Amino acid sequence: MAGVTSALFDRGVSVFLCSTEDNPIPTQRYMDAVIDKRVDGIIAAGKRTDRQVPAELSSLGVPVVYTIVQPEPNSVCFTVDDEGGGRMATELLIAKGRRRIAHVTGPANFRVVHERALGYKSALASAGLVEPEIGTIMDDWAERAGRDAVRLHFDGVVAPPDGFVCGNDQIARGVVDALALRGVRVPEDVSVIGYDNWHYYAEEASPPLTTVDMNLEQLGRLAGETLLQMIDGHVVEPGTRRLPCHVVERGSA
Amino acid sequence: MAGVTSALFDRGVSVFLCSTEDNPIPTQRYMDAVIDKRVDGIIAAGKRTDRQVPAELSSLGVPVVYTIVQPEPNSVCFTVDDEGGGRMATELLIAKGRRRIAHVTGPANFRVVHERALGYKSALASAGLVEPEIGTIMDDWAERAGRDAVRLHFDGVVAPPDGFVCGNDQIARGVVDALALRGVRVPEDVSVIGYDNWHYYAEEASPPLTTVDMNLEQLGRLAGETLLQMIDGHVVEPGTRRLPCHVVERGSA
Repeated sequence: MAGVTSALFDRGVSVFLCSTEDNPIPTQRYMDAVIDKRVDGIIAAGKRTDRQVPAELSSLGVPVVYTIVQPEPNSVCFTVDDEGGGRMATELLIAKGRRRIAHVTGPANFRVVHERALGYKSALASAGLVEPEIGTIMDDWAERAGRDAVRLHFDGVVAPPDGFVCGNDQIARGVVDALALRGVRVPEDVSVIGYDNWHYYAEEASPPLTTVDMNLEQLGRLAGETLLQMIDGHVVEPGTRRLPCHVVERGSA
Repeated sequence: MAGVTSALFDRGVSVFLCSTEDNPIPTQRYMDAVIDKRVDGIIAAGKRTDRQVPAELSSLGVPVVYTIVQPEPNSVCFTVDDEGGGRMATELLIAKGRRRIAHVTGPANFRVVHERALGYKSALASAGLVEPEIGTIMDDWAERAGRDAVRLHFDGVVAPPDGFVCGNDQIARGVVDALALRGVRVPEDVSVIGYDNWHYYAEEASPPLTTVDMNLEQLGRLAGETLLQMIDGHVVEPGTRRLPCHVVERGSA
């Protein structure tokens, strides 16, 4: 929302947010309402790339740009290069000298879990490293999942990990806190990297979290600028653009 | 937003959110835009009761309801009874048998800090208790402030607090974590209560936080229903309604 607004506001375009919570009835009603109010275009912003917007938007007669959602066919979509994000996180730990790196992430029904895992695996393979044998797809994106993962990886394990690539900052924080309670030092003994760069969590952890930032504000800005081009009648090539992440280094790796 | 939407959606009213970030130029432009789009009414929702909306809304010609903001004179406003919230939190700790209760809260330039402090002081006075001598208005609403407060209240102190009433859940979490690192047990030795009921923080703390919930969804619902009455031509008495909080008990008190 901040990115979309910053892209469009200086060009005299006002942005209205309708919150439909993935529910088909409000979504359809809001679409009717915004068309009735004669909006010039729609950005359909989701939070999961494996979920569709629960309404048919392509027939509304205004340009539509999709972000972080399963787009309709032949539409314009901006999303995150999550495979690249997982790779980038893993490569950072490898560059810090880590050799036994675990991936601790959220539930398997999220597409991003598998995309980030692909990046993690490819970074390990490129460096000639292998995954720990213990599985680390957890049942939740919560701190508790991070604490549970540390238990799985340390209790009775001869060679526990020296690095954790985490699926989000909450999990990373659970990992960091659980390691501290075991007397394992972060980042001296074990490096931990989060995902999301959710400031509250990342900055207040001890140590503050090194994490992957998905550049969501820039993604919103690009979506806004692209929508404006479409409104102005320019032809925009359909397809999904996967924008790169970047790593924010703080203290945990 | 969720409360406003839930109040209005079933009556066929669509809700559009404009994010103006306290900035006068976007606020004025958005007001022009929503009037141009012929909205039926406006809810001006802030996040601080000591800040005005940076635009004159009373002249727009549509009904306006204010929430959690410094309202214009003679307008209708819904806000939180923060004095009551501070009192409620303190009374809970007193009911749990606590007798040396500290108030650890955010920066002094927030009006709510003083309102909650009033409630805290009046609850102590009613129970015949006195405040610890150490001042506890911190410079930030962050976990770090909670950790700093524990240091101030414990280092070299003969009789440290047995209870902490915290200005938000982040501070409460900092307090809980700092106590754990000192080997002080929560809630056995010291009770801690937060404020906000921000689920991520409150549920994932160890122990999960007992906290004050400001009933914001209900506040939004009342604001929505009241706006609808005004749109329908009913006369609504001007003034600020302070809605009560409630305590959510988890494990920290």
